[in-house]
Amino acid sequence: MHILILGGDGYLGWPTAMYFSNRGHDVTVVDNYFRRNACTELDVGMLYPVPTLLERARIWHELTGREIKVVIGDLKDPEIIRSFFNGRVSYQWAVNQGFTGIPATVIHYAEQPSAPYSLINYKYANITVANNLLITNNLVWALRDFSRDTHVIHIGTMGEYGTPNIDIPEGWIEIEHKGRKDKFLFPRHASSLYHTTKIMDTDLLWFGVRMWDLRVTDLMQGPVYGMETEDSAIDNRLMTLFNYDEIFGTIVNRFVTQAVVGYPLTVYGKGGQTRGYLNINDTLQCVHISENTPAKKGELRIFNQIMETFSVNELAEMTRRVGAKLGYEVEINHLENPRKESEEHYYNPTYQGLIEIGVKPHYLTDDVMEGMFQVVANYQSNIRKDVIFKGIKW
Amino acid sequence: MHILILGGDGYLGWPTAMYFSNRGHDVTVVDNYFRRNACTELDVGMLYPVPTLLERARIWHELTGREIKVVIGDLKDPEIIRSFFNGRVSYQWAVNQGFTGIPATVIHYAEQPSAPYSLINYKYANITVANNLLITNNLVWALRDFSRDTHVIHIGTMGEYGTPNIDIPEGWIEIEHKGRKDKFLFPRHASSLYHTTKIMDTDLLWFGVRMWDLRVTDLMQGPVYGMETEDSAIDNRLMTLFNYDEIFGTIVNRFVTQAVVGYPLTVYGKGGQTRGYLNINDTLQCVHISENTPAKKGELRIFNQIMETFSVNELAEMTRRVGAKLGYEVEINHLENPRKESEEHYYNPTYQGLIEIGVKPHYLTDDVMEGMFQVVANYQSNIRKDVIFKGIKW
Repeated sequence: MHILILGGDGYLGWPTAMYFSNRGHDVTVVDNYFRRNACTELDVGMLYPVPTLLERARIWHELTGREIKVVIGDLKDPEIIRSFFNGRVSYQWAVNQGFTGIPATVIHYAEQPSAPYSLINYKYANITVANNLLITNNLVWALRDFSRDTHVIHIGTMGEYGTPNIDIPEGWIEIEHKGRKDKFLFPRHASSLYHTTKIMDTDLLWFGVRMWDLRVTDLMQGPVYGMETEDSAIDNRLMTLFNYDEIFGTIVNRFVTQAVVGYPLTVYGKGGQTRGYLNINDTLQCVHISENTPAKKGELRIFNQIMETFSVNELAEMTRRVGAKLGYEVEINHLENPRKESEEHYYNPTYQGLIEIGVKPHYLTDDVMEGMFQVVANYQSNIRKDVIFKGIKW
Repeated sequence: MHILILGGDGYLGWPTAMYFSNRGHDVTVVDNYFRRNACTELDVGMLYPVPTLLERARIWHELTGREIKVVIGDLKDPEIIRSFFNGRVSYQWAVNQGFTGIPATVIHYAEQPSAPYSLINYKYANITVANNLLITNNLVWALRDFSRDTHVIHIGTMGEYGTPNIDIPEGWIEIEHKGRKDKFLFPRHASSLYHTTKIMDTDLLWFGVRMWDLRVTDLMQGPVYGMETEDSAIDNRLMTLFNYDEIFGTIVNRFVTQAVVGYPLTVYGKGGQTRGYLNINDTLQCVHISENTPAKKGELRIFNQIMETFSVNELAEMTRRVGAKLGYEVEINHLENPRKESEEHYYNPTYQGLIEIGVKPHYLTDDVMEGMFQVVANYQSNIRKDVIFKGIKW
């Protein structure tokens, strides 16, 4: 099967590319280096240097004999995504320059993925809106025009739901109102502009599904942690990028890095904010199982892609406990919350759907976090304390 | 009070400008001539020529002594909207070039307003998404940064709700689910890409209201008909633009024009599609009353802005009846529906809110339609039959 990965240079994109390549799929990745360029522009370091996407594809080919074709391009330009369907693509790197053919599955990670980035100021807000919505729209139209049978796996976010005072189902809800009934997308309201663009992605994808019988799986993912996957284990140069800064770092990755470098854990406000989390290896597993059992024609299938929930306080406590075991003295600092969000709230999401189709969760145990401490410690001298907290407010 | 009108050259924008100007307000309009340029590009005529926005402002000033300041600019550029708040604006036309000051109310009409336009092809789809969302986002950020107290009146559309199988409330719904309750935006799903961008506008505005206590009134408007307003009566050159083509013409305006020129009325499919409608004079009235009784800080106030509902078949029958009285023999043609929409469906929207705050509806009577026939007949020789139906499919 041919898998096209949009955003193939990113935190999840590159591990996904290796994962499918290792399992015998033809894989093509496309990226415009948005994340790397943003990190340079905003001067937030990464934990270790990461070879370019072309270099990684070359290393991957040398070590495994497998080909991951690479295109560097901005998917806001509709002709780029269309080139993967009309055969006009030109690969920046490939062993075989011949057109692989229309992808059976498109995995869409090509989004500006950071809530704080989207709220730095009006310019970054616009970049986020334009990037996320034009890319999704271009994808919908390429499918409409060339291949309505191609399955899209889109990464949504649990943040689309916000923290409602009722249980969160997997995407859909039946509403009874004045004696009549209908089924709707669960009404969404997010607490960042980035998360709001993901709501709007869902609006666009749902429109494409209703109008043109597209096949879409929308994975409402929680924050992901970890950096090592089975496929990267063969060579450190294949490890995915790792941010620990306020803008692009996810919380568990940040806390472990802060613990290693002796920077007090930055808990915003009361720390009762509860979210669902998952291991990067479970992202791969969920995407793989979704690919294997695709959505039907005319179906927008939604799964809540989390494996367990924690409050920020619980994560901070776990980091302190695991750190202590390894000889790190970890302080916890409750900062004035720079965000507008509920610090204590009801939270009861359903997340059975992926498990029902075969996902076996990896949980965030002390041992798993200890493994993360060990990797981060290898790069301790690279850690820049100045990027950990800048207090982007909204 | 100072009123800023975004999209002040459009079908509703210009009549709104005159309306508030005539009532003693300071009015500034901004437009990039999107609608005119699109009509030229797509070669769809208008019923009569319309002076430029600068010319209209000059005529208005000559006839009334009142000043409507004009800026020609593209609001996708955030600096344009910001200039109305930070004083850096430069007016293309004004009697007094001095900065009027921060607007008390912004009326946001600056949207690509056509469902068929948004679905011509992927390029027009992208223009629609970029235009509508970047402008709304730029507006939200300008308010956040400079004037959270300014009241925004945004024109949404009843089309955001689609045609659900339950009653349509005014924007909000309380949902009870597994023994708990919360209040949500009524879940939206529209039947065109244009209408979907208006859902996404609501997402953005609601985010701004929650995060920064903005004040927003979102008027979920149905299709508008008519061309004459009290303020344009003093001079034909002040009449608003009038489209009768498939792309920009609204249905009543189109049917009357088709009847006058002897082009069979184009009913799509069974014609049971039911929508809410309103007279252009009621748009002015609704916007005025909303301006007069603004939303509170931190309130997204939603009204369903329709005065009555009709099915397409009912509008066709009325056009035939009124036409017959005036000596036109009007044929009705049921075409294969080029759109994907329900042709028979439940439809029961609430629309009491605006009436409760003082709106006095004008209804679409035979007399009102007869008046429209008379105006259109004056321009009969301008009507181009070739633009009436092209069958843009989705």
